[in-house]
Formats: sequence, C-alpha cells, structure tokens
Amino acid sequence: MSMVAEHAKWPKENDIIFSLSERAQAAEKELGKDKVINATIGALMDDNGKLIAMKTVYDQLKNLPNEEISAYASIGGQPAYQEAVKKVCFKGNDPEGYIRVVASPGGSGAIKLAMYNYTNENDVVLVSDWYWSPYGIIGEETKRGVENYALFDESGNFNIDSYSEKFTEILNRQGRIFTIINSPGNNPTGYSLSDEDWDKVLDLAKEAAKDKDKKIVFLVDVAYIDFVRDDDASRKFFKKFGNLPSNILTIVAFSMSKGFTAYGMRMGAAIGISSDEDITEEFYYSLMHSCRANWSNCNRGAMAVLSEIVADDKKYEEYEKEKNSYKDMLLVRANAFVEGAKECGLEILPYRDGFFTSIPCDNPMKACEELAKENLYLVPLKMGLRFAVCAVEESKCKKAPAIIKEVLDRI
Amino acid sequence: MSMVAEHAKWPKENDIIFSLSERAQAAEKELGKDKVINATIGALMDDNGKLIAMKTVYDQLKNLPNEEISAYASIGGQPAYQEAVKKVCFKGNDPEGYIRVVASPGGSGAIKLAMYNYTNENDVVLVSDWYWSPYGIIGEETKRGVENYALFDESGNFNIDSYSEKFTEILNRQGRIFTIINSPGNNPTGYSLSDEDWDKVLDLAKEAAKDKDKKIVFLVDVAYIDFVRDDDASRKFFKKFGNLPSNILTIVAFSMSKGFTAYGMRMGAAIGISSDEDITEEFYYSLMHSCRANWSNCNRGAMAVLSEIVADDKKYEEYEKEKNSYKDMLLVRANAFVEGAKECGLEILPYRDGFFTSIPCDNPMKACEELAKENLYLVPLKMGLRFAVCAVEESKCKKAPAIIKEVLDRI
Repeated sequence: MSMVAEHAKWPKENDIIFSLSERAQAAEKELGKDKVINATIGALMDDNGKLIAMKTVYDQLKNLPNEEISAYASIGGQPAYQEAVKKVCFKGNDPEGYIRVVASPGGSGAIKLAMYNYTNENDVVLVSDWYWSPYGIIGEETKRGVENYALFDESGNFNIDSYSEKFTEILNRQGRIFTIINSPGNNPTGYSLSDEDWDKVLDLAKEAAKDKDKKIVFLVDVAYIDFVRDDDASRKFFKKFGNLPSNILTIVAFSMSKGFTAYGMRMGAAIGISSDEDITEEFYYSLMHSCRANWSNCNRGAMAVLSEIVADDKKYEEYEKEKNSYKDMLLVRANAFVEGAKECGLEILPYRDGFFTSIPCDNPMKACEELAKENLYLVPLKMGLRFAVCAVEESKCKKAPAIIKEVLDRI
Repeated sequence: MSMVAEHAKWPKENDIIFSLSERAQAAEKELGKDKVINATIGALMDDNGKLIAMKTVYDQLKNLPNEEISAYASIGGQPAYQEAVKKVCFKGNDPEGYIRVVASPGGSGAIKLAMYNYTNENDVVLVSDWYWSPYGIIGEETKRGVENYALFDESGNFNIDSYSEKFTEILNRQGRIFTIINSPGNNPTGYSLSDEDWDKVLDLAKEAAKDKDKKIVFLVDVAYIDFVRDDDASRKFFKKFGNLPSNILTIVAFSMSKGFTAYGMRMGAAIGISSDEDITEEFYYSLMHSCRANWSNCNRGAMAVLSEIVADDKKYEEYEKEKNSYKDMLLVRANAFVEGAKECGLEILPYRDGFFTSIPCDNPMKACEELAKENLYLVPLKMGLRFAVCAVEESKCKKAPAIIKEVLDRI
C-alpha cells in the first residue's frame, strides 16, 4: 500500500553522516573523548569538541528587538540584507554588471532555487566527481540528473580537459548547461580553484557562448569562502564574472552557515550576476516565485544579524577578528593533518582551504567501518573518505593519517 | 533574451499585499495613524499598530544557549520538537492511529511538502473558492492546478453539495485527490467548519475510499487554530481522522507563525495521520527527501523555543495566558466589525475564528482603490475584500464596515 505519487518514492534512508556522528558520540561517552576521533561533523568545533557559536553573532541576535525577529520578511529578503550579502561575499571584489540577491534558507536553498529555475526536467547538471552529495538529491527530487568530470588530473591539478569535455558534450546535447563549482574550500576535498583555473573555465564558456542559442549557467557555491588562507586573494575571481556575454549567467550561492556559525538559522542567498539587466531581473522574479512556492520567506532575525553587523564598522571588525581566530585554528589543524599524511605516506587530495580534506580509497564503506573499530569516525564518499578538520583538535589531526594509512593498507 | 527554463517564466509581479501595506504606512506617516485604517497586515498588531511579539516566546528564544540556535537540526526536525508539535496542535485530541511529524519552514513549507509528494504533474488540487492564494502559487510552481468548490451555500453554511460534486469529479478523473481545507479560522473568511461539516466531508471520503484504487489526501491547514473562541471544542475534529481507511491520508499543516507570533522565524510542520503504519513511514521518508532537496533542515532555535515552552508546565501556562489575552483582544475586534457590519447593513461572510473577515463584492480591485481614497486599506481578492481584524484596533473595526458599505454602494 502506497499513497505518495510515483515521483515521490524514495528508499527509506536516514542520513549517513548523522548516523555516524551519533555512533561517534556514543563511543565518546563510553570510552572518553580523548580516545575517539570524531571527524564526521561539518561544523567548527572547539578543542573540547563543543560547537563554536561566535559571540559577536549571537550577541547581535539576542540584542535585536523582538519585532525584528518576529515580523515576516519580504519574499526576496530584506533590502538591507541583500546589500549586506554583497558586501560580505565580495568584500570589494564586486563583478561589473547587474547583480540581484534573493534570500534563501542556507546555501542549500540557494542551490535549489538556481537549479530548479535554470534546468529542465531530465537535464543533467555538471559537477565534479568529488562532490557534496545533496547536489544530486536536489536534482533528483525534480528529475534532474548529475554528470561528473574528474576534478583532478594525474598531477593533482584542476582537470580542465575533463571539465571541457563534459561541458561541451552536455551543452551540445541540451542547448543549455548548469554547472556547479564549489570553490574555494571545496567540500569534500578542500581544493580551491586558482585564478588560472577559473580563467580556463571561463575561456571555455566564452568560446561556447559565441553560439547565442546556447545558455550557460555557473552556480558557484562559496559556502566555505570565509575560511580561506587569504580573504582578499580568494575573492579576486569574482571580478571575472563581470562583463561576460549575456548568455552566461553566474549565480553565487552564499551561506551564513559557516562564516557566521549560523548553521541552524538557515540563512543564505542566491546572487545573480549578468551583463544584461533583463537577465538579472528575470533571475529575481523567477527565484521569487520559487521562494513563495517553497518556503514563502526566510528567517528575518538571521537577516537582521548580518545587516546590523555589516552596517556597523566596529561590530564588523569585531566579528572579523573573532572569525579570523577560528580560521587560524582551522589552518593549524589542516596543516597538522597534511603534515601527518606526509609523514606516514598517506595519499590525500590537495587541500587548500575550508572545513574538509579527503583521502581517495577503494571500498570507502568498508574502510569507514574498519576505522570505526579504531575509534576514528569519518564520512564515506563514493571515491574515498572525508575527514572534517573543522571538528577535530590539532593533535588528533596530526595522528589520524597514520591510523587511516594503517587501516587502508590492511583492508 | 531569457536564461531561465521555460517552466520558470512568470510575470514580474511584486506581492500585492506588501505593496498595499506600504501605501497604508505611507498614508499613516502623512496623515497620522488615527486617520488611516490599515487592514492589510496578516499579523497581530497592538492598538497602536505595533507588531505583537509574545514576551514568553522571545524571552525563551533569548535564553537559549547559543549552540542550541547555531547547530544544524535533523532533517525531519528535532525529536523534542516533533513531540511538542503534536502536543500544542492536538491538545489531547490526538487521532487514533500512526502519526509522524516532519519539520518545515512555516505552514507554507508544510503545504509545499504535502502537495508536491501527493500529487502528480497536471493534477489539480481542490480548494474552496475563497482561498489563500499561495495554494495556487505552490501548485503552479510544479505544474499543479487548482479547482474550486463554493465554500458557502445560499444560507451561508458550508456547501457540502458543491464540495461533494467537485470532490467526486476530480477523484474519478485523477484516481487520487488532494484537497486543502483551511479551518478553523479560514483565511480569508474567518469561517470554521463545524463538527457536522467535518462529518459530511469525511462520510463522503469514506464512501469514496471503498474503491481501494482511489487515493484521498486531506491537507488540513490549521494556521489559525490558536485564535479560536474555544480551544478545546475547536480541536475535537482531529479525533475524526483516527481509524480512517488506509487510502485516506490526513496531513495537518502546523505553523508557529500565528500561535507563537513567530512569523519571521519560519517554523512549522507537516503531521501525517494514517491507520496504516506503512503509510506514515512512507510519508516521513518522502517528505524528508523533499526537505533535503529544498532547504535541508529548519530553524533549530525556533524548534527549541517550542520544545522548551511545552516541556515546562509553568512556561506553557504563562505562554497560554499571554496568548489568550491577545485572543480576547482579537475577539473584541472581530465582534466590533461584525456588529458594525450588521448596523450599517454590510454583507460579510460568516466569521467564526481567526485573523480575517471577508466582504463579497464585484470588482474588488476597484473597491480597494476607492477605499484607499478614504484611507482604508485592505486586500482585494478574486471575489471580494479581506479585512484583517488582527491588525486593526476595536474602534476602527467598528467604523470600517460603514465606510466599506458607502464605497461599495457608490461604485
């Protein structure tokens, strides 16, 4: 007996990351926190394994007038929020052209808005082979598929040949392409495209865009952009989205989750960038229709937190100072992991920025279970394992690679 | 030049309620608040026109540990929240059977989850002719249409004949039906189905459900259930959803927006009720897939507010006391409006509960503009005007009907 419509039948699966995290926490209770490495969680944790909630952010939230939290927000987001999003996202590297912002519940909501409005049923979207699995879930919900290019070539550099091949094939087949690039600080690998990588990607797109019947949409997922080695250098690529042909649209998926430790507040935005004003207007109204039809409007208090912090130089400075202290902490951990991997000879993917690093391996599910026996919990992917340096203190980051190496050699 | 997919092209419309509300606020600034009646806003306002944000709710929010706001929630919602939703929604009138709760961003999110998963493309959903227009927007976004039955018969009673005719026609045509009933305190009319109305609706469904190939889904939108004359009597109908045939599924759309003055926090839930455990399990996993694919998870702080209030008898009592004081305020206003209408002979629809009352008329857009000239702002509907008693103080509620009558007689 079934009541749902045919398209809504899915396997009864619980979230694997959530389940693994629960097992890790149970092990911590039983054995003590020092005996367990829980590298499953995609959030910043302090050295005692406690979730970090930035003081500057939550002081601001708790100082808001109640009415500023209680009232409905505008469908597309409060105007002050839309402006604040551009400021914190671009930090002065605004691309030339027309830009519109639509508020969304987290980065997930922004990706959903973009993908649904810029693809057709049975289209595929192009993502790298190492990718955040919800891209696939967002797609399959409304009958969009995923095709992969190889993110890395044999030297561990961005694989422009693979990207180019898949890009051209899909664009020729569909007449339009929607391609997601999650950089800087790619989840799960920690890779960031260099400016030269971006030039290659955009040269390819510009060449393809000479055929005016082709429509090219870049979804740039910058969820981890506030945790990069160099805030300014890592944002220079935004400039490249200015003055592109009008049949190339860039949509940036912005999220407050990581940069403001606001995961649970569900606040993000889709930022549309085009050289053609009509295209950004169309973007705005199409996405607004989806907002109304999916969640109506977004968390007003969360919007006010961002707007208030950004509007006040002193508050913004204090927030940046606090955030950068956690960024330094993250970098120390990531360096420890990379160093540990080098020392024991564990092959890992090239880490640049962000919360995660990945280890390629065969049979990730089995590796994950074997590692659990060693009290090391991480997340199995299709092609390897994801280790969350954001959630694990330095000394454990240092020793984890040797444990992983030992298990991978054994199985 | 266009970049969006064909299905995503919509007229570039801004929200009419939002625009009218802005015009009303501009008039208040120019002429003074005492000269303007702003009955556009769908939220509780105090007698000075200030948004009401319940102290018990926002004290609780601001007393939460930061981590309880910051952390990601489970996809389907925190377990304590799921339990709290059942408690505040049913208040002891839980239907017999299997019940599962999925968290959603407001009632809108719950309706979206339900409609998308239980209808097919090109299906129509059945709603009354007086209906909240986002039902149509949620549907059209993914190619679902809306068909109407007449909510009232000539005596102003629930029109079971019209409901029955459309219900049967659509069910026979589609093999399944998804029907939304917004009660108690229907938006826009303020009508509430009586227990006898519900019996007639469910007798019809039970008869139709004898054909086991037919699938019948009720979406009961109870957004205004916390603003009814009698909390207990108004919830007795929930019991009727127990022990129904397994091819009748009931989904209750719950919202914290009104009952907790938490509009901007975007927190609600879809509650699935069935006599068949498989059906509620299927409900849970299908809706969870949609959650992941649309917004990932919901506002954790808002969930914690509800859970903490419900878990503490003293807090719950204080919240109820505060809420009931506003309910009393609302009833006084609604009575004043109904009384005013009677005195001047303005025909209004039968008001029972909730935030709104409606006035049937020809050419609502024109009526609305003419009323604006009299500094009375309300919302034009397809078949009349919506007056928000929730937002207008008693003396203005009393005198508004005569102004409306005068304008409707004139145009």
